[in-house]
Amino acid sequence: MRFAPHAALALALAAAPVAAADVPSPGEIVAAAPAAEWVAIAAEDLLIMTLTPDAKGRTRRVVIQLMPAPFSQGWVGNIRVLAKAHWWDGTAVTRVQDNYVAQWGDPDGEDAAKAKPLPAGLRTMAESEYVVPPYHDGESVVRRVTGPRDFYADRATFRQGWPVAGAKDGSTWPVHCYGMVGVGRNLSPDTGTGAELYTVIGHAPRHLDRNIALVGRVVEGIEHLSSLPRGTGPLGVYETAEERTPIVSIRLASELPAGERPRFEYLSTEGATFARYVEARANRRDAFFITPAGGADVCNVPVPVRRVAAR
Amino acid sequence: MRFAPHAALALALAAAPVAAADVPSPGEIVAAAPAAEWVAIAAEDLLIMTLTPDAKGRTRRVVIQLMPAPFSQGWVGNIRVLAKAHWWDGTAVTRVQDNYVAQWGDPDGEDAAKAKPLPAGLRTMAESEYVVPPYHDGESVVRRVTGPRDFYADRATFRQGWPVAGAKDGSTWPVHCYGMVGVGRNLSPDTGTGAELYTVIGHAPRHLDRNIALVGRVVEGIEHLSSLPRGTGPLGVYETAEERTPIVSIRLASELPAGERPRFEYLSTEGATFARYVEARANRRDAFFITPAGGADVCNVPVPVRRVAAR
Repeated sequence: MRFAPHAALALALAAAPVAAADVPSPGEIVAAAPAAEWVAIAAEDLLIMTLTPDAKGRTRRVVIQLMPAPFSQGWVGNIRVLAKAHWWDGTAVTRVQDNYVAQWGDPDGEDAAKAKPLPAGLRTMAESEYVVPPYHDGESVVRRVTGPRDFYADRATFRQGWPVAGAKDGSTWPVHCYGMVGVGRNLSPDTGTGAELYTVIGHAPRHLDRNIALVGRVVEGIEHLSSLPRGTGPLGVYETAEERTPIVSIRLASELPAGERPRFEYLSTEGATFARYVEARANRRDAFFITPAGGADVCNVPVPVRRVAAR
Repeated sequence: MRFAPHAALALALAAAPVAAADVPSPGEIVAAAPAAEWVAIAAEDLLIMTLTPDAKGRTRRVVIQLMPAPFSQGWVGNIRVLAKAHWWDGTAVTRVQDNYVAQWGDPDGEDAAKAKPLPAGLRTMAESEYVVPPYHDGESVVRRVTGPRDFYADRATFRQGWPVAGAKDGSTWPVHCYGMVGVGRNLSPDTGTGAELYTVIGHAPRHLDRNIALVGRVVEGIEHLSSLPRGTGPLGVYETAEERTPIVSIRLASELPAGERPRFEYLSTEGATFARYVEARANRRDAFFITPAGGADVCNVPVPVRRVAAR
């Protein structure tokens, strides 16, 4: 059949003829990266969310990579406390809004009489923690390639495997790309504990940057969330308990027996391959394309993350 | 429960306190637009796609608005021919790729022996028709509000209800926002007939602009496509017939009996309300938000479209 074009990391079209100047696609560039440019993700930075099996009895597992310092560490710390307390076991996916978010947590979280008690040791974060103050770090070469400006910030770039935006003063913050995981909150000054989480399942809602904490991204299994039926209540909230997909468990990978921990790695955003990958994403010259765009927004250059076979 | 923020057109949070300066949300601005600023969509510009019922027996209908002149009229013309020939009846959704597209058409379309014969009267379009040459038209006031530049073009704006990008020379083309519908094709110089269509179900793949024809947008029912299971084959193609959701029919609304035609209207992008709506999307000051972004990308300002009660 005729194709709409493939995503960056998919295989080249099976029927693509070999062109005289065979320009590699972004996916091919990534696939050829040397092993040394792949950075292992620590087990303590991986959350494994297991939903109930689907209608055909198949396991549904979502893997989330937590953000490293200096981003959102208060909320990430709380998430570790909640995961170690097995707090999300028995909670559910509570909301799925098309072209926006899938959200999960305690369906009764706002009902003082029924809310599931939170574990001890959770911190309360200030709004100032949405943004990281200026700090000095090697400037990624991709800064010059992603374009002079970002609509939502003075600049956008990649740092240690993550898409970030920044201001002229050097402060930075994570950005709401597809698959990023954030912290549900009530109105300001509430900043959320981390008990209520969501992931982006549509066009990047960048207007949320700096207004809500981002704590990670889904690296595998997002389809188990993005393909859920949309809620019919306001904001895509599920109106009945039966509509909610139950969460069996959320565990840090470091809490699993060593032999059961999934292993993942991401392509270093400070390496040569990533710079070529960004350039290829911004200027598609591989067989399917006719007119290179000449630029790309930071959320249209997903950082490659892949599962590694168990040792 | 704590909320991730609501989408532009959703109701304000039920629990939002009334602030001293009660700033309307984008959705509230739109809801207050005078009737005269809503533009009726002609029945011949609406495609009604009916899928087989879901597992609970509920009807699944997707409504697509076709683009007006001067955009993509060759392909739009072919789509009318195909719809009048009832060509899609019995075809299927053939591919769903996460954060990318849902695609439909003849699963055997590339098999000369099995492909469903196409109706007579289909045109073949040239690649030059992806872009509309410069023409003079009232410049929408929103041009100054959406920002000085777009990553993928010299500028992005709205014209007669549609998001478009353009070059300095005045040429324009439609853009691949969420829900936009495009024409599957093989490698250049093939431009596709319109028999194979897709819609965007993830972050706007703007690198496709000018490389493939856009012919419309889903205005209702996109969840019936975006929530489908993802295909497990390469590029999200369904590998078995059982995975494909069958299409019962695709009809132009103008072909339905007058009493059965759904009616829709869009908010004029040349009116005062739309300009205020864009500004509010770019600078969220309503209760949930703390830091206005100061800008918005063209795909983060969805043009409001609403169903109108039958007469």
